[in-house]
Amino acid sequence: MKWAYIEDIADFKDQEVELRGWVYNKRSGGKIRFLLIRDGTGMIQGTIYSEDKDHPLFQAFDQLTQESSLIVRGVVKEDKRAPGGFELGITDMEIIQTAQEYPITPKEHGIPFLMEHRHLWLRSQKQRAILQIRAELTKAIRDFFDNRGFRNLDTPILTPSACEGTTTLFETEYFDQKAYLSQSGQLYNEATAMAFGKVYCFGPTFRAEKSKTRKHLIEFWMVEPEVAFANLQDITDLAEDLIVSIVARILETRKTELDILERETSPLERVKKPFHRMKYGEILPDLKKKGSKIDWGDDFGAPEETILSEIYDSPVCITHFPAKIKAFYMQPDEENPDEVLGVDVFASEGYGELIGGGQRIHDLGLLEKRVKEHKLPRDAYEWYLDLRKYGSVPHSGFGLGLERTLSWICKIKHIREAIPFPRLLYKIYP
Amino acid sequence: MKWAYIEDIADFKDQEVELRGWVYNKRSGGKIRFLLIRDGTGMIQGTIYSEDKDHPLFQAFDQLTQESSLIVRGVVKEDKRAPGGFELGITDMEIIQTAQEYPITPKEHGIPFLMEHRHLWLRSQKQRAILQIRAELTKAIRDFFDNRGFRNLDTPILTPSACEGTTTLFETEYFDQKAYLSQSGQLYNEATAMAFGKVYCFGPTFRAEKSKTRKHLIEFWMVEPEVAFANLQDITDLAEDLIVSIVARILETRKTELDILERETSPLERVKKPFHRMKYGEILPDLKKKGSKIDWGDDFGAPEETILSEIYDSPVCITHFPAKIKAFYMQPDEENPDEVLGVDVFASEGYGELIGGGQRIHDLGLLEKRVKEHKLPRDAYEWYLDLRKYGSVPHSGFGLGLERTLSWICKIKHIREAIPFPRLLYKIYP
Repeated sequence: MKWAYIEDIADFKDQEVELRGWVYNKRSGGKIRFLLIRDGTGMIQGTIYSEDKDHPLFQAFDQLTQESSLIVRGVVKEDKRAPGGFELGITDMEIIQTAQEYPITPKEHGIPFLMEHRHLWLRSQKQRAILQIRAELTKAIRDFFDNRGFRNLDTPILTPSACEGTTTLFETEYFDQKAYLSQSGQLYNEATAMAFGKVYCFGPTFRAEKSKTRKHLIEFWMVEPEVAFANLQDITDLAEDLIVSIVARILETRKTELDILERETSPLERVKKPFHRMKYGEILPDLKKKGSKIDWGDDFGAPEETILSEIYDSPVCITHFPAKIKAFYMQPDEENPDEVLGVDVFASEGYGELIGGGQRIHDLGLLEKRVKEHKLPRDAYEWYLDLRKYGSVPHSGFGLGLERTLSWICKIKHIREAIPFPRLLYKIYP
Repeated sequence: MKWAYIEDIADFKDQEVELRGWVYNKRSGGKIRFLLIRDGTGMIQGTIYSEDKDHPLFQAFDQLTQESSLIVRGVVKEDKRAPGGFELGITDMEIIQTAQEYPITPKEHGIPFLMEHRHLWLRSQKQRAILQIRAELTKAIRDFFDNRGFRNLDTPILTPSACEGTTTLFETEYFDQKAYLSQSGQLYNEATAMAFGKVYCFGPTFRAEKSKTRKHLIEFWMVEPEVAFANLQDITDLAEDLIVSIVARILETRKTELDILERETSPLERVKKPFHRMKYGEILPDLKKKGSKIDWGDDFGAPEETILSEIYDSPVCITHFPAKIKAFYMQPDEENPDEVLGVDVFASEGYGELIGGGQRIHDLGLLEKRVKEHKLPRDAYEWYLDLRKYGSVPHSGFGLGLERTLSWICKIKHIREAIPFPRLLYKIYP
């Protein structure tokens, strides 16, 4: 008999199939028993009917506890009332394991308890919905870049130098040297962009930040495109296109999961081009009017992100930040060298920064000056400076945080649910 | 005028376009100048024709050094003799930067020199071909699993415990604890497989091995599927299907790159189902006959891998390894408990192990025994043991090394060319 997955069950209407899965729930009523079975791809109701109250299937049914594993066989019947539209008339059942008392019951559990049991919590409906959307989002992002001719070039995790500041680096011994876990693939992307024109990397990145917020993970995934010959305008267009494309894809393909999460989708449906675009200097008065204490030269914090989403009901692109709050490689604005050609994209609904990026310095002299000003070890950056000696061109890129974006799309309260095994301050188990 | 990429040039036949790129090579002849331009997506010959020997475009041409960056405009002309079938009749040229003397010239360079200049070496034809195939391979792998309903669930890099032995781990301080860089996502995959049925992870992994071979990287990418309810047979079938599918994809879509690499493709065309499958115990006599010094209980080394590919001209699956040379979580064979239900897949042409995997122990008591025997810290594995308490099922999976597979497909001599920025013993720059 054919081993079928529940997500394909419609293909087996009126046929006998074998399902392999776990007990999600069960209930009895007279001559009938109901078994809610999950197999990882979906959920189906199985029914056992008998006039004989001592029927062997009833006896097996009685042994089943929550999350017990089993193989069932039976005929797939269409039933419009059933969730998913199909039911299984069980004719045979094989218990693989009667589960011990499952720690996660339908009652409410505290977050610390659920986090300690993350390896089991993943089986819950909402967690599954979030992570299904995550998988789709990853695919949507990759498809977006692949379809536009970007080459996926992986950048290293173990690096000899720091990209963004040295206070939040994880350090490890690398044979006779020190190595650091990558905070961004950007510098390496700049090298591959000169070889391939349009590139992206997509992998885990690490920030040993001692902050405990709803928006930060210690280990998170980031996609970073880099484009040779692109300027701030080009890369802002690309950022917009990316966000519009991935949100549309989730709305189109993951409606079931958004429903499970009770996500009101109208804010996502409003994600259309063009986004509001303005300069840092232009938005400052509006932020202050709404209560922000920010002054020119200060970076945005959580209050500013919240205010931004009160003013605008869809994502916003902010450009031309003060140079002093941005990284050493940012291209200064020709007219106002105190400002850099950076762009940050902020989500709606208070979810904060999704994207940070901009145009990179392509002039060798200026970059050498910045390396010195920022007291970076010239040795470690020699290869990076080389990129400005041999056919340097204006180029731009950005990074989009996967978990930030997922948190926003799913409207979840804390980013820890946006990754299978979150790494948080002092938390590395399981 | 439209900024076009060379790979799309056929769409612009007889039209004026703007190309942005770098000088790959140039030559002069009387009233004509030839400029070989690369833009990262391809290469095209540009021509400048003039009766006037002092033509401004000739003067600009004279300034151009190898790898100088430029923008050229002109009309796309079909020319069957030209590589790629098209030429650009240049009417306008803007030099972005005249490159300093480029370190990598058409003459032969030593490998240490090229490795020190990896950030530039990437621009060379062969390196580009390898990494284009890498990007396609990554996509082929992801498509294979996505199309079969596998969920991509990322597993963590920072982990509190070791999966495979503790001597080759990178360690880092994780706030008040120690953390280790992941050598495999498998244990976490086992948790997500119980939640999603069929899963895979695909990310960087780390082995601090003090060995210096042509087949080892310190940091490498691995794809790892895991399937609930799958046994050794099922997972061997999956491994076969995967290899057949990705090799076919490269042959179909990356012929140009294989040609650049002068890869003779007949060994790849022989990659068809079914692969030779045999038990470790069965192949041993054949290995010995061909000169291997291996005894039952010894692991395969480079000599055995070479002999295997002398016997067979396509990939081979070896199963039923001695338990003592395999990991603690391997399911023993019921009939011969000294053997485990593992499977390794070996490439043809001496490229060695591409895949390692098998069926995992699903019995709680046996796994607890193994954890004890291997002196693993029970605390750190508590969550892993939980998977055997709550609906444990037989399950199987494997890991395929991306760079190993790419080295074989491209038939390159050393794995260091199979990743943009290789991490090798003592080597972490650039």
